[in-house]
Amino acid sequence: MQYLFEPDIYTDRRRVLQASMQGNVLLFPGNKNSPINYAANYYRFRQDSNFLYYAGLDLPGLNLVIDADKGTTILYGDDATMEDVVWTGPQPTLKELAASVGIADVRPASRLFEDYADCSMHTLPPYRAEHYAVLQRLATHADCSVAPSEQLILAVVSQREIKGPEEVAQMEEALEITAQMHTKVMRTAKSGMRESVLAGVATGIARANEGEPAYGIILSRDGHILHNHHYHNVLQKGDLVLGDFGAENRMRYAADITRTFPVDKRFSPEQADIYNIVLEAEMKGINAVRPGQMFRDVHLLASQIIADGLIAMGLMRGNPEDAVASGAHALFFPHGLGHMIGLDVHDMEGLGEDHVGYGTECTRSDQFGLAYLRMAKSLRPGHVVTVEPGIYFIPALIDQWQRQGLHQAFIAYDKLTAFRNFGGVRIEDNVLVTAEGQRVLGPRIPKTVAEVESLRAKA
Amino acid sequence: MQYLFEPDIYTDRRRVLQASMQGNVLLFPGNKNSPINYAANYYRFRQDSNFLYYAGLDLPGLNLVIDADKGTTILYGDDATMEDVVWTGPQPTLKELAASVGIADVRPASRLFEDYADCSMHTLPPYRAEHYAVLQRLATHADCSVAPSEQLILAVVSQREIKGPEEVAQMEEALEITAQMHTKVMRTAKSGMRESVLAGVATGIARANEGEPAYGIILSRDGHILHNHHYHNVLQKGDLVLGDFGAENRMRYAADITRTFPVDKRFSPEQADIYNIVLEAEMKGINAVRPGQMFRDVHLLASQIIADGLIAMGLMRGNPEDAVASGAHALFFPHGLGHMIGLDVHDMEGLGEDHVGYGTECTRSDQFGLAYLRMAKSLRPGHVVTVEPGIYFIPALIDQWQRQGLHQAFIAYDKLTAFRNFGGVRIEDNVLVTAEGQRVLGPRIPKTVAEVESLRAKA
Repeated sequence: MQYLFEPDIYTDRRRVLQASMQGNVLLFPGNKNSPINYAANYYRFRQDSNFLYYAGLDLPGLNLVIDADKGTTILYGDDATMEDVVWTGPQPTLKELAASVGIADVRPASRLFEDYADCSMHTLPPYRAEHYAVLQRLATHADCSVAPSEQLILAVVSQREIKGPEEVAQMEEALEITAQMHTKVMRTAKSGMRESVLAGVATGIARANEGEPAYGIILSRDGHILHNHHYHNVLQKGDLVLGDFGAENRMRYAADITRTFPVDKRFSPEQADIYNIVLEAEMKGINAVRPGQMFRDVHLLASQIIADGLIAMGLMRGNPEDAVASGAHALFFPHGLGHMIGLDVHDMEGLGEDHVGYGTECTRSDQFGLAYLRMAKSLRPGHVVTVEPGIYFIPALIDQWQRQGLHQAFIAYDKLTAFRNFGGVRIEDNVLVTAEGQRVLGPRIPKTVAEVESLRAKA
Repeated sequence: MQYLFEPDIYTDRRRVLQASMQGNVLLFPGNKNSPINYAANYYRFRQDSNFLYYAGLDLPGLNLVIDADKGTTILYGDDATMEDVVWTGPQPTLKELAASVGIADVRPASRLFEDYADCSMHTLPPYRAEHYAVLQRLATHADCSVAPSEQLILAVVSQREIKGPEEVAQMEEALEITAQMHTKVMRTAKSGMRESVLAGVATGIARANEGEPAYGIILSRDGHILHNHHYHNVLQKGDLVLGDFGAENRMRYAADITRTFPVDKRFSPEQADIYNIVLEAEMKGINAVRPGQMFRDVHLLASQIIADGLIAMGLMRGNPEDAVASGAHALFFPHGLGHMIGLDVHDMEGLGEDHVGYGTECTRSDQFGLAYLRMAKSLRPGHVVTVEPGIYFIPALIDQWQRQGLHQAFIAYDKLTAFRNFGGVRIEDNVLVTAEGQRVLGPRIPKTVAEVESLRAKA
C-alpha cells in the first residue's frame, strides 16, 4: 500500500526542477533493501528522500530519470512476477503505481543502462554502497558520465527546503505520534527500570502508527553523552532522563523532539535551575524564529541565555557577551541550536550540510561548538527547523578543557565537581517559519517544570 | 557494552577452524553501519554472524584475520578518538575488547591492506555491498587474491550447525522474550484494531529486552500471503490472525515462532478443523525430530498429516500417499517444514542453503513445495530446527492450478470457493536435537485450541 500525495504535487515538483536544470538529464537512484545478516533478511525498507520527493513511490529497486532535455520523466523498474503474487499477494502494476505519481513512461529496470548508454547525467551524492554500484555500472558505458552535481544539489535544496502545506500536515502527523511516544515514556519511567524498556515503549508506538523511529532513539540517564544509542542503564532515583526521539510517519516525514524529566516525581532544585535556563533558551529561541532572521543569530541568542543562567548559578563568570564570543559556553552547550527537518530528520544532510544550512550567505565557524551548527542562514517562510538548546556536564570535556587551561576567565571549574554526575538537559521542538513569524508544529508536549512534574505525578 | 561468552569459547572455536583450514589465511569482514537516508542516519547495527561466532565483538568497522598458516589471529580496527569520547562517552580500548574474546593482536584498520598485500585469503560469500568494497580493495593489490571459498564455507557450517550449551541458553533467552511478544499480542488483538498496533506491541517488547525482531515481523489477517510485511489491515470479526515473529536477543541469537489465533474469542468450527490438522502435523513433526532422522522425511510426514486431514474435510481426495508423492498437498502447504536457526533466523543462509541443509547427503527436489525445503539432511545432536507446517488458501495459486488443470485427482477445487477468504494457519516452534530425541526450546507458548481460546478470553 502506497501513501501518496495527489499526482499534481509530484508533477509540479518535477516541472520546477526541469525548469531549473534545462537541457540536462537527471538520475535519481531509488534505494534497495539493505541486508541485515544475509541477503534475504533485510532492514525495513526506506526509500531515498529525493526519490520520494519527486516520485513518491516507497518501493525498492526503482530508478527515476528526469530528462530536462527532452522534457520527459521515466520510471525504471520491474513488475512483480506470478511467483511474487503467490508469495506477496496481488500487487498493482508499476504502470498503475507510476500513474498515481503522474508518470506515464515506465520501462524495465535493465533498460536504464541502454537508454542512457551515451549520455551525461547529473545525480546527487551517493550514500549507500548500492548507489555507487549503479553509477559504476553506468560509467562502464564508454560515453556515459554520471556524477554528483552541485547544480542539481542547489536546485533540489531550493525546492525541498520550502515545505508545502501538504508536507507540513505530514510533519504534524509525525508529531502527533511523537507526542504519544514522549508522553507515554514520561508516564512509564520509574526507578529500577532499564532504559531499554522506555526505548521499547517509544518504538512500539511509532510502529503501531505505521511509522518508525526517524533516527536512533536517544533515551538515557546519561544525557550528557550526546551520541548515545545504548539503553543498558537502570534508572536510579535522582537521575534525569533525556529522551531525544521522534517518529517518521507513514509518508516518511520526520519529527525530532527532546524532553528531559526526573526519575523522581519532582526535579531537584539544581535540576530545576538548569532546566529552566534551557527552557528559557528554547522558548526565546523559538520566538526569535521569523523570516529574514539568520538562524546563527538565534543560536547565539540561546547561547547568551545559557551563559547568563550559568553565570547566575556561579558555574560561569565574567561578561556573558564576551563568554559567548569566545566560545566558553560551549563547554556546556557544545552543539548547534538546530537544523532543518523534513523527509530527513537532518533534512537533506546527504546533499551537504553547508549547501543546506549555509549556502552562499555565510561560512561555517571553526570555533568549537559553533562549528557544529548545521543551520546558520536566514530563515524563510516554509522552512522547518528544530530549536534544541541544552546544558550538559561532560566529564571528559571538562577535564580536557581544565587540563588545557581553556577559558579560565569564564568557567568556574572548581564549582563543576558537584555537577559531574548531573547528566544533561535538552529541550527541543520543531518550528515552522510562517509569513508573520513562526509556529511550533504538532501538539503541545509537556515542557515546563510544572507540566513535566504533573505528568510524572501520574507515573 | 558488549555481551560476550567467556574468552575460551571464542579461542576454542578459532582453534577448531584453524585445524580444519591448515595452511590458509581466513578473512572475516565485520559489518559496518548501514545508512538509512543519509550517511550519518543508520539502521541499528548488526554484526556479521560469522564474525560474532569467532570474535564476538558487536561493533562496526572491524575485520578479523585467522591465519591458519602462522597460527595467529589478528583483529583490525581503530580506537575511539578523544572527540569520540566526548560525544559517545568513555569507551574501552580495542585492545581491552579483543582481550575479552581471547585476541591479543590488534592492529589499525588500514594495516589489513598492507599485512596481506601479497597473499591468498579465503573468505565467505559477501552479502552487503560494503563487503564487496573490502574484497575489491584487497584485490587491487597485485598479488592478493581473496575469494569466497567452499572449503571455508564447509568448515564454518560444520562448526556453527552444532549448537553448544552456551548457545542454547541464549536461544532460550530469545524465546523467553518471544513468548512475551506472542502472549501479549494474543491478549491485545481485537476487532477494529490495525495490524500495525500489534506489530508495535511485539517490537516494543523485543526492544525493551535489549533485543530486536530477528526478522521482518509477519502479523496479518492475510496469513495466506506468506511474505507479507505490511500491517495496514484492520482486524475484523471472523478473521484469523497469523503472527510469525521472534526476538533476536542481546547476544544476537534468534527465535522464530508462529502462532495463529482468531479475532473472536473462539475459533469457528472450520477454523478449528484446519487449525487442528496443522497442530497435529506440528506436534507429530516435532516428535519425529531425533538424531539420524532425515529432516526431509519429517517434512513428508507433516505433509502426509496435512493431506490426510484435508481429505477428511473433503478439500482433497484420493490416496494421501499418492497425493503427497505427486506434490498436490503443496497447494495448501507450499513451503518447507523448517530450517536451522541460531545466530541467523535462517541459520547460515548467507553461506548457501544447500551447503547448510543438504550437504552431500541429498539434493534438492524440483517439485513445487518440496523445492522450498531449506533443511533436508539427517539431524544430529546440537542441531536446532524450526518445525512450522501450515495450511493456506491462496486465491492466486488456487486459480493458477485450476486454470492449468493441475492435480485434479487430488484437489476438490469445487469445495475451495468457500475457503477463499479463510487466510492461513501456521504453527511453529524451535526444536533442539538431543542425544536421545528432541526438546522444544523456550517456555510453552499457548498452542492448542483450548490454550489459545483461554488467552483470547482475557483479551
